[in-house]
Amino acid sequence: MEKFELNILGCGSALPTTRHFPTSQVVNLREKLFMIDCGEGAQLQFRKSHLKFTRLNHIFISHQHGDHCFGLLGLISTLGMLGRTADLHIHSPQGMKEIFIPVFAHFCRGLLFKVIFDEYDARKSVLIYEDRSLTVTTIPLRHRIPCSGFLFEEKRTPNHLNREMLDFYHVPISELNKIKNGANFMTSEGEIIPNDVLTFPSDLPRKYAYCSDTLPLDTVTEQVKGVDLLFHEATFSQSEEVRAKETFHSTAAQAAQIALEAEVGQLVIGHYSARYNDEHVLFNEASAIFPHTILAEENLCIPITYKGK
Amino acid sequence: MEKFELNILGCGSALPTTRHFPTSQVVNLREKLFMIDCGEGAQLQFRKSHLKFTRLNHIFISHQHGDHCFGLLGLISTLGMLGRTADLHIHSPQGMKEIFIPVFAHFCRGLLFKVIFDEYDARKSVLIYEDRSLTVTTIPLRHRIPCSGFLFEEKRTPNHLNREMLDFYHVPISELNKIKNGANFMTSEGEIIPNDVLTFPSDLPRKYAYCSDTLPLDTVTEQVKGVDLLFHEATFSQSEEVRAKETFHSTAAQAAQIALEAEVGQLVIGHYSARYNDEHVLFNEASAIFPHTILAEENLCIPITYKGK
Repeated sequence: MEKFELNILGCGSALPTTRHFPTSQVVNLREKLFMIDCGEGAQLQFRKSHLKFTRLNHIFISHQHGDHCFGLLGLISTLGMLGRTADLHIHSPQGMKEIFIPVFAHFCRGLLFKVIFDEYDARKSVLIYEDRSLTVTTIPLRHRIPCSGFLFEEKRTPNHLNREMLDFYHVPISELNKIKNGANFMTSEGEIIPNDVLTFPSDLPRKYAYCSDTLPLDTVTEQVKGVDLLFHEATFSQSEEVRAKETFHSTAAQAAQIALEAEVGQLVIGHYSARYNDEHVLFNEASAIFPHTILAEENLCIPITYKGK
Repeated sequence: MEKFELNILGCGSALPTTRHFPTSQVVNLREKLFMIDCGEGAQLQFRKSHLKFTRLNHIFISHQHGDHCFGLLGLISTLGMLGRTADLHIHSPQGMKEIFIPVFAHFCRGLLFKVIFDEYDARKSVLIYEDRSLTVTTIPLRHRIPCSGFLFEEKRTPNHLNREMLDFYHVPISELNKIKNGANFMTSEGEIIPNDVLTFPSDLPRKYAYCSDTLPLDTVTEQVKGVDLLFHEATFSQSEEVRAKETFHSTAAQAAQIALEAEVGQLVIGHYSARYNDEHVLFNEASAIFPHTILAEENLCIPITYKGK
């Protein structure tokens, strides 16, 4: 199975603690890296996770709270010092560009690469990234300011060729691409060999959804239906439900309820309030509702596996 | 002896490593905290060093390179969330205010405290802070952009009263302040009792000097003459002397030579280049020249003791 991993760089919330960095994650799909949020210290944690800066071309920012984007300054500055030349795309809600551009201009003079802000409308779900193996779509969330989650969907790859059967039927090289893409093959005797004899099915495409910061939403449950891995914020425990609602956050129980109803493969919770010295209260609460729950922690790497497996 | 300590929050240089945070320090004089530089992650390290945000009212920024000031955003933001109301002074070279004010306005709305930028002229030595126990004076440095070090000088405290002798000579309470400040005492019989009979001498005032980032300078040697503790950057080892000069930095040997010539009490070196996986090469080089050398490391707390002791 091709590499598809989630690296947690930071899983605390706004107030610093001695145990957590603010929010940042890196999705690694076949060694292409996609950063989600970039809290203070993200570049340090990136290094600690042994990820490669040259593999990072896209950063997705969920919303304009400092604990989700203050790390951009240090990161851009470092990429400049490393002599980067490739464009760097920052996908963010509207309004970030005009704030950050003057700061980069002041502190990161002489960059050899372009920082391109691709601003999206956080009020609706939009496709904001696509390449031959992946799409990224926004998930509208409900926080104190415009905020989006992100749905990473792997594209289905062509079937794998069955070399032995291809040899057996003397399939010419010119036919291989068609067969990879599902075509049958006709032998010189006119016999039709069905595609499934000539190929092994490729892996099913996998999905990862990231949802932070937000009130629990039915629309999220719908949009993350059946994903293999769901990150959902769980800033508070259920005993702080009122506080969660006031601050437009979710509880661990609410995150787990969404995971259950959306029938996801695994749930990873994070964005812990600084009040918790031990997040097992959040873990216990969530896993009682949705057993396949993981507690996010710094430098944890979670393989995204097909949920049926 | 009153508390006078240096807390190292970060002692790396611009490029992130898995072992060091960028530059930040906190001077603790009798539980008043003074931050020097504020690299990314300074607020996290501040917490880790178990320091109190409420005790911090002054931040001194040496120069406008990101690894010395990007942590301001997260720190100010956190102070806002903690409900701070006391003014916070940021002493910096000219030009920082206009860059940071719009960013604070965008990300730190509704602060209940004022962030006051006290900009200084980095070309000369100026007194930038004074209270009843301390002065802070800038030390002009030579880097790629305007840059200053800081000299922290404790003020001499009044002598301690010798209660036993005061009782013996029936000194009235109304005389105590004068005696503390050095006056003699005349008894009712007209006998003059010298001050040194009535008091114990107070501790000698201590000095701490911070010098980063800079080429080695004779003017620094003069200005830090006899300080009890000197922090001097040692970005490179002597084998990288050419690189050090090109980038306006110092080597460990150069830092030690300044400590030796300035006859300081102790030298602490830091601002290590990312190329060193083990800074003992820098330590060995410096301590061969100046034996009382300390390697800075994260969350190290160094008591500043009178160098004669």
